[in-house]
Amino acid sequence: MPTDVIFRSATEPDLPAIVALLADDTIGAGREGDVTAQRGTYLAAFREVSADPRNHLVVAEIAGEVAGTLQLTYIPGISRMGTERAQIEAVRVSAAHRGRGLGHEMIAWAVGQARERGCGLVQLTSDKRRSDAIRFYESLGFERSHEGLKLSL
Amino acid sequence: MPTDVIFRSATEPDLPAIVALLADDTIGAGREGDVTAQRGTYLAAFREVSADPRNHLVVAEIAGEVAGTLQLTYIPGISRMGTERAQIEAVRVSAAHRGRGLGHEMIAWAVGQARERGCGLVQLTSDKRRSDAIRFYESLGFERSHEGLKLSL
Repeated sequence: MPTDVIFRSATEPDLPAIVALLADDTIGAGREGDVTAQRGTYLAAFREVSADPRNHLVVAEIAGEVAGTLQLTYIPGISRMGTERAQIEAVRVSAAHRGRGLGHEMIAWAVGQARERGCGLVQLTSDKRRSDAIRFYESLGFERSHEGLKLSL
Repeated sequence: MPTDVIFRSATEPDLPAIVALLADDTIGAGREGDVTAQRGTYLAAFREVSADPRNHLVVAEIAGEVAGTLQLTYIPGISRMGTERAQIEAVRVSAAHRGRGLGHEMIAWAVGQARERGCGLVQLTSDKRRSDAIRFYESLGFERSHEGLKLSL
């Protein structure tokens, strides 16, 4: 297990590293653009996320480098007696740090944040092709109870 | 198809009807409380949702009655080139209005809202036990590409 991980809010200088993590992925690769050429687009999105108190874009830093990223969204709602839920999106661990427990530490940290805030539920979806990721979430106590449906516009 | 549906933002007086819709469901029944006894809890949640510009609690009204409800959450993010996604939660149609196309009209309306806003993706999860609902979403073009994982805290 990595013992020297720092979790912190992402800042603008982290943006190229975050986009690189999103792109360095068999499923996500084709979906990202060049962060320099598309800087304005990515920066606008970054600022939208950062400005929103219910969204938290996080980096996991090891030895001064961005080793992982995830986004937390706190969704208020009426159902389950007004339970606020925490949603985890865009989880990525850099290739150099895979297989060493960083993903586990990141999700445990995110669940801890949700618990501290008083959320009653943590939820995420994982592409069905990511069978390792799905088993990993199940090993952390997540239940594969729902179908995740997406519609591209 | 119902032709007289009005979609509007939920207001405080709609709260008992919304909670009743959430509770009138084989899966959701055990998760809700008495809206009178738990009024403070539900009202606090309602106000959290209403105050947030990225959350939109909606009712579908027919002949002055709340016939359906859903919640839209607009989630900003870096991935997919800074795509904002619209998430649909807590979709319910009253027993009296089921099987008449209201659900279809509600989801089409929600997708239209997302498109108008410029979202690149609409997403939702549906309990695997709701096989009719899942087929219904697929018929609207949603792809069952993800596992939906939940962890109760």
